[in-house]
Formats: sequence, structure tokens, C-alpha cells
Amino acid sequence: MKITLKDIARELEVSISTVSKALKNSEEISRDTKEKVQAFAKLYNYKPNNIAISLKNKRTKNIGVVIPDIVHHFFTTVIRGIEKYANARGYNVIVCLSEESFDKEVINMEMLANGSIDGFIMSLSSETQQKGDYNHLKEVTEQGIPVVLFDRITNEIECDKVVIDDELGAYRATQKLIEQGRKKIALITTDDYLSVSKARTMGYKKALTDSGLGVDESRILKLPTMEMDEKGIKDFFEGHQDVDAVLCVNEIFAVYSMRLAQEKGLKIPEDISFIGFTDGFLSKYAYPSLTVVAQHGEKMGEISAQMLIDKVEGEKEEEETFQTKILEPTLVVRDSIFH
Amino acid sequence: MKITLKDIARELEVSISTVSKALKNSEEISRDTKEKVQAFAKLYNYKPNNIAISLKNKRTKNIGVVIPDIVHHFFTTVIRGIEKYANARGYNVIVCLSEESFDKEVINMEMLANGSIDGFIMSLSSETQQKGDYNHLKEVTEQGIPVVLFDRITNEIECDKVVIDDELGAYRATQKLIEQGRKKIALITTDDYLSVSKARTMGYKKALTDSGLGVDESRILKLPTMEMDEKGIKDFFEGHQDVDAVLCVNEIFAVYSMRLAQEKGLKIPEDISFIGFTDGFLSKYAYPSLTVVAQHGEKMGEISAQMLIDKVEGEKEEEETFQTKILEPTLVVRDSIFH
Repeated sequence: MKITLKDIARELEVSISTVSKALKNSEEISRDTKEKVQAFAKLYNYKPNNIAISLKNKRTKNIGVVIPDIVHHFFTTVIRGIEKYANARGYNVIVCLSEESFDKEVINMEMLANGSIDGFIMSLSSETQQKGDYNHLKEVTEQGIPVVLFDRITNEIECDKVVIDDELGAYRATQKLIEQGRKKIALITTDDYLSVSKARTMGYKKALTDSGLGVDESRILKLPTMEMDEKGIKDFFEGHQDVDAVLCVNEIFAVYSMRLAQEKGLKIPEDISFIGFTDGFLSKYAYPSLTVVAQHGEKMGEISAQMLIDKVEGEKEEEETFQTKILEPTLVVRDSIFH
Repeated sequence: MKITLKDIARELEVSISTVSKALKNSEEISRDTKEKVQAFAKLYNYKPNNIAISLKNKRTKNIGVVIPDIVHHFFTTVIRGIEKYANARGYNVIVCLSEESFDKEVINMEMLANGSIDGFIMSLSSETQQKGDYNHLKEVTEQGIPVVLFDRITNEIECDKVVIDDELGAYRATQKLIEQGRKKIALITTDDYLSVSKARTMGYKKALTDSGLGVDESRILKLPTMEMDEKGIKDFFEGHQDVDAVLCVNEIFAVYSMRLAQEKGLKIPEDISFIGFTDGFLSKYAYPSLTVVAQHGEKMGEISAQMLIDKVEGEKEEEETFQTKILEPTLVVRDSIFH
């Protein structure tokens, strides 16, 4: 019976993050806790590395995908892209959801790394980005298990990465709204700890600054997560009845905002325009249809799978090199803005 | 190196289904092929059963979920329910997609049954239901690996099952439309091989018959799969400009149909009413919002997980008993019909 981080955490009634840090002798953890964790790990013969040893000896032809959720259409399209490419090269795909939880991300990785897969394709949970704790990823990459990060990435891990240029996407969307004469453009996003939200907020601000309109911070709504928050959005619009355009970091926020505007009797796009991120069913079949910054999820999935499988099957070089692929976002113009 | 059904199929250039049937001595397969497959399996020491043996000796605390897709909101809510219940009991969830393909369903099951999981929660791929080939499920259940089927099920496998009463859901939805004075009610569904579509079509027809309106077969559009088919739906409405209400087996078909009606200048619900199945974001945030038969996906997921984990942890009885839980659907009335 192999003992896991989760077992140690449960047994000692501390968090998984604490165990992980304690085993790495982190200064953030009290000496007392560290000693307890290390003693326990030793007693039960905890070995993070027996994973990698088993892996090197056999190929499973399985890819592990760990993503925050499947409620947002974007992640489902990425999975479709991964499946398509991986299947064509004879690989199966196993999906696990972190549900935006750090603990679940760690548990899932630990479980999959246990000889079930040849490598990981991942997008980080919001809690992981918030904590800034990437030890579970470091452990895996240090053991030589290939990892590809997409969309929500971190600079603290050396591995292959795939993103779209979120800043450019938000810049172009905002610029488009400005070109159409909009002057009071709101942004509905999340707190900056989420890498994609941070980049999109920067693009939005840059476009406003470059145009001379300037940034009005009060027009930016930062929600805690990508989860739908009807009350938060409703309250925001109650306090900002003068906005004439809205950029949203996902399509659900945008489609809900359009409904609120319509319920107030506003005409889209005559009175107010909307642009969202992600090009899903919701955007396509909304009424009016939603203009979006397409994130090319399927392409992102295909590229991630290709990078991972190439690493899995490639010969180890003397010095390993990693690359970050940046895809260009596309503005898909529909009826929620003038065209 | 363990050999799998997939390996045999590739090596002999036949389908996975053929290999599976040949190993079971099925009469559908030619003697020549059977001999070839069986000889190959023997030569490479193919053993379907070594899976189960390894399983019985250790609990993985992992649940394998194999579903047709995650594009439809229904399946994503089921997964959420499974995760919620399973996590609370200390289990991890591994998701694999069949993408409506029989082969992928078989490959995924084979991969997961290889000691990675304690049991399966599954909804059958459309191709599996079309073929009516359930050998891969039989193999697993015969080996004592617990399986729970939900939504798309089959009577040919003895195991626990969870469904909603699809016939009743369609009956009530159709009845509601009739009560509101609708006389020309169309149904957009898929071919009957899909168990849920068959049941919903029966409910629709029963309501029309019971009301005395009678069934007009030409008002039923049967698409090949649950995949969105814009042209098919558009052509259907071109030929049926007189329909005054539409029942759809999923929300995507319904929301697209609403858009077509609006583009023709029809008012919803004054001129035409719409009801769909599944209660997702698309229904909730469509304009007008869509009345739906809620399938209670999250509840279905929770019950499936409970049934499975109870079986996994339960003592084997002398005679195993299985149950089918039937959930009652709920009509969620929104602006796409009168209320």
C-alpha cells in the first residue's frame, strides 16, 4: 500500500499544501509541523519518486488532462482537440477535473502520475494560481514526466506551454468598440490572480489608454472566479447605467449581461454593445448572437497534444528545451455589435 | 507487455467489435476470422480476465466515468454530481469520452479496467446503441467489476441503472403545449436506436393521441445523432411553416430553432412555442429563455456514484440484485411558452 500526500494530510489533519511544503522544508511551515510531517512520511515510507521510475519503464499510451472545469465551453473544445490529435497517434485521453480546487488538482495529478499516463496536459485551477503554489507540478517535471500547460499557465514551471495572446484579444475587442464610437466601455472579469484575466484586463486598459479615452477603474468589475455570479453582475449594472459597451472574459457573463440590458429595454447594439471571450454554442445561438474573441480551443488542444506526444516519444536531449506557443485570437463579429 | 483487443484488431486489420465477437465464438463472424483471431490471441497470451484479478486485490478509490460527450450540458452536470458525491466519500473521478464511438468506448473501458478504477459509471455511445453490441460491458460485469449505467442504458446488461422517465417528460411537455391551444406540434429528435430519443418520441406521440389531436409523422424530424445539424433543422422548418410549437430532445436544437423562427419574424410564444430537454446555461440565458424538461443531471450523477460506491464497498451477496432508479422529470416553465 503506497502512501500519498493526501493520506498524510488526512492523517495529520493539515492541508495537502502544508504537507507538500513541509516535505520540501519550506520556511513557510513551522518547525513543529515539518518534523511531524517528515517523521510520518519516513515512517510510512512515502516516496514521491517511485512514480517516475515505473513510468520510464513502460509507455502507457495514455495522456492525462487536468482542467478546472467543463462548464465553460472553452475547455470542452480543448479536450476535443486533444482527443482528435492524440487518438490519431494512438493515444487515449484521461480527463480529471480540479474544479478550481488546489487540493483536487494535486490529488488528481498524484493519482494519474501513478503509472497510468505518459504525460500531462493541464490548465491551472484558480486556487492554484491564487496560492502560487506549484510544487506538485515541479515534482512531476523534475521526475521527467512531460507536462504541457495551456491557457492558465505559470512562469514558475519550466515546460511547454500554449496560450492565446489574451492581451491582444482584449485590445482588439476594446479597440473595435472604440472605433464604433463607444466611450463608456465596461469590463467584466475576475481578480488578477487568474493569468488570463490579468492579461485581458491589460489589453482592455491599453486600448483605452492608446485611444485617449483613458481608464475608469470603476467600470471594471472583478468577480472572484469564472463561476457565474448573477447578483454581482446585476448590482454592477445597477450602479453603471451609463455604460454603452461591455467586454466580458467569458461568454456566460456576456450572455447574461445582454439579457439584463434587454430586460431594461435597451437595444443591442443600438444602445449598448457586447463582446465576450470563447466561441461556444451560447455565443452562437444567443439572441442577438454574441461577438466574441475566439480562443481557438480545439487548435490549442491539438497543439498541446502534439507538443506532449513529441516530448513523450522524443529522445532526451543533453539540455532540454521548452517552448511557449502563442496563438493569435480572432474577433468573430456577430449581431451584438455593429457590422 | 499485455496485449489488448485494440492491438489484435490493428494487427489483423479487423474491427474491435469483430475481435470481441470472435473471441466469444459469435456466429456473426466467419470461421476463418474466428480462427485467426483466436490463434493470435492465444499466441500473444491475450487474457481479458487479468484485469479483474488485479482489481479484486486492491482498491484504487478511483471511479471511471465513460460518457459520449461533454458538449451537451447534461453530461457536464452529471459529472459534477458524480464528483461531488464521490469526493465526499474519498473517491477520485476519471473521465473518458467515447465521442459516440463504439471503438473508443471499448478502448477506454479496457484501459480503465486495467487496475485503475474500482468501477464504472457509463452512458452508452450512440454507435454502441446502434450496433446493439454490449460484449465489452458483459465482460466487465462478468468479472465482478461494478457498473452503473445512466441515461443511455440497455436491458441487455444486468447492472444498476439510473434514468429519468423520458417518456413522461416528453408527455408532460407535449400536454402543456396542447393545453395552451397548440395544434401543430413538431418534434425534433434523433433516430430511435438512441434509447432516450425513443422514449421521448413515445411520450410525445402518446400525449397527441390521448388528446385526440393524433400523430402526424411528417412533423417528426429524426436527425442521425445529437450533434447539431443546422441544415437538417433549417430544411425541416422550410417544409413545415405551419407548426405552432416545437419539442426538442436537447437544448441546442431548441435554441437554434428559436433563432430560425425569430429570423422569420415570428414572435415567441405568441406565434410559436418551444420546449427542450436539459436545463443548461443555453436554456436559461437564451432570449427568450427556454422552457425545458429538466433532467436533473447533478442528482443523476450523485445517485449513480452512490449506487456504484455502495456496490464497490458492499459485501458480495449470494445472489446479486440490481436496481433501476427512475427519476421524475420536471418542467421548468420560462418565456418560450405562455405562463
